[in-house]
Amino acid sequence: MKLIALAGQTGEWLRGAGPESEIVLSSRIRLARNLADQPFPEWAAPAQRRAVLETVEAAVGRSKFLKNALVLRMSDLSEMEQLFLVERHLISRDHARQPEGKGVVISDREILSIMINEEDHLRLQVLQSGLNLSEAWAMLRRIDEELEKELPLAFDSVWGYLTACPTNVGTGMRVSAMLHLPCLVMTRQINRVIHAITKLGLTARGFYGEGTEASGNFFQLSNQVSIGVGEEELLDSLGRIVTQVVGQERAARQALIGHSKAALEDRVFRALGTLKSAQLISSQEAIDRLSMVRLGVDLGLIPTLQREGVNRLLVQIQPAHLQMLEGRVLTPAERDARRARLLRESLSAS
Amino acid sequence: MKLIALAGQTGEWLRGAGPESEIVLSSRIRLARNLADQPFPEWAAPAQRRAVLETVEAAVGRSKFLKNALVLRMSDLSEMEQLFLVERHLISRDHARQPEGKGVVISDREILSIMINEEDHLRLQVLQSGLNLSEAWAMLRRIDEELEKELPLAFDSVWGYLTACPTNVGTGMRVSAMLHLPCLVMTRQINRVIHAITKLGLTARGFYGEGTEASGNFFQLSNQVSIGVGEEELLDSLGRIVTQVVGQERAARQALIGHSKAALEDRVFRALGTLKSAQLISSQEAIDRLSMVRLGVDLGLIPTLQREGVNRLLVQIQPAHLQMLEGRVLTPAERDARRARLLRESLSAS
Repeated sequence: MKLIALAGQTGEWLRGAGPESEIVLSSRIRLARNLADQPFPEWAAPAQRRAVLETVEAAVGRSKFLKNALVLRMSDLSEMEQLFLVERHLISRDHARQPEGKGVVISDREILSIMINEEDHLRLQVLQSGLNLSEAWAMLRRIDEELEKELPLAFDSVWGYLTACPTNVGTGMRVSAMLHLPCLVMTRQINRVIHAITKLGLTARGFYGEGTEASGNFFQLSNQVSIGVGEEELLDSLGRIVTQVVGQERAARQALIGHSKAALEDRVFRALGTLKSAQLISSQEAIDRLSMVRLGVDLGLIPTLQREGVNRLLVQIQPAHLQMLEGRVLTPAERDARRARLLRESLSAS
Repeated sequence: MKLIALAGQTGEWLRGAGPESEIVLSSRIRLARNLADQPFPEWAAPAQRRAVLETVEAAVGRSKFLKNALVLRMSDLSEMEQLFLVERHLISRDHARQPEGKGVVISDREILSIMINEEDHLRLQVLQSGLNLSEAWAMLRRIDEELEKELPLAFDSVWGYLTACPTNVGTGMRVSAMLHLPCLVMTRQINRVIHAITKLGLTARGFYGEGTEASGNFFQLSNQVSIGVGEEELLDSLGRIVTQVVGQERAARQALIGHSKAALEDRVFRALGTLKSAQLISSQEAIDRLSMVRLGVDLGLIPTLQREGVNRLLVQIQPAHLQMLEGRVLTPAERDARRARLLRESLSAS
């Protein structure tokens, strides 16, 4: 089973490095692409979908950049493995829901992934640690150009790239950044900030992407519309707004340190103490406490702990990861116990 | 300052030893006595009260049993020191409220104490670890008899000992035991148990005595009436009821271990984790968490910790104790920080 190799490693986006990485967990760019003269996956017959899958797999096979990539068919994976890929932010929940005729390509270190036959024939994404949009874009563009030579893409000179959903027509691009904003939440400024972001054409989602609630004070900011603006402009605009929000979070951190240092440290160390002691813990509580611990690491309060370690735990505490670790399906109660043990063991030295 | 010597030691009743000491923290007997031909303290003029104080002090001075006792006048103590004695269960809150003309005698290891001019001229108490009523009674009787030879006590052949409040007339005796009943609370049986106790003529009070709420799952059970029954009967009756409640708590513990072991351990270790990590903590939260830790010690879950250590912390976390430790008056916020530090330092090895 190839996926077990991933379970033992940390995706590039969790490294906790790169610009602004004390607040920006990761940045992501994805491109929606479709093959010309083929119905979109939703409207395609099974045979048509399979043909697209094979065509794309063949093109990937010829790619230089994707030479060492893992090429998987969703129908070959167990439900646990599918969920595992969702938890690693490599595929969407929708992609796991109906696996028939769908595929996924995962590059070395999980920087790049391609969903085949999700909403569009191809969904290419690059996921990087920190606020690293230009590097991500350079990489994604190379792969996009390479695939474009191999595959006849649906492109209209007026509309741009054609996509299954009109909100993606044009560049087919969505840019997003995952921000950790605990002090904007604590100081109750977060709603004002999100309101302002929305007015600027962005949306804020939760840690687990579209349709999920913000948890652990993580917010994914992304552009809503991809038409009428160029790629560079989209990247610049998101980068600028993210930088502003980062500045606001930083100011909130300084303000809290200024007037509530003891209370802030209390919250951080209590969270760490709970994670080191609990015998049963839910995902939701774990992510909330890890959020406080991450803040403590970022503020230099927990010198024995690295940001990357906390990031890794944010992913490892999820159900499919725990089950991969244990090598079997676990009941929810067993997961709560296994999660607590993982956290205790991982944090015992800090 | 003589009291500082007490601050460094643990009262006998906190030793965590004696019969049933995993559930019965301590047992206490007190006798109310008054001098004949002297008005009760409440109705006495200041000079009369002073005369009583001096008479009793002189008798104590001649006592063999109280040879090494600390003899203090309340008006010589600072407010912090008065509160310190309340927190050690050596005097009542009322005794500290209006210190004029009042005294206290504290024996070696704090087993025996005498309040002079509280509600009655003399309030003698013996406080022992565990359910130790017969030993306590033997000791208290010896001292009572000795003082009776020295002092003309108000005794009526029909009514018995005369006291300021009619509920104490007769034996002048109140017997009580402090029980730790976390599992009767968790299994929601405690109200039923207290209801039954009340029907048997007992009352249930909180950790800090009369007029305080139960906290940390500690309940002080005591007799309500002292007339019409002999001393031995009072002691037997309380002892029997306490033994029954102890049996019920023990059954509740076994039941929880049987069907909710993981959840029980989770609560215990989370409490310990919080106490080892918090930077700020209130008395109320501290006592609640210490209650869970004590349960963990009693269940053998925390082998590195002794019952006596937890008992000692239950007393040391209180405001006057913290201030004695620090050697100065502390603001409430400073106390929360000092309390958290004391707990972290005391529990770091467990």
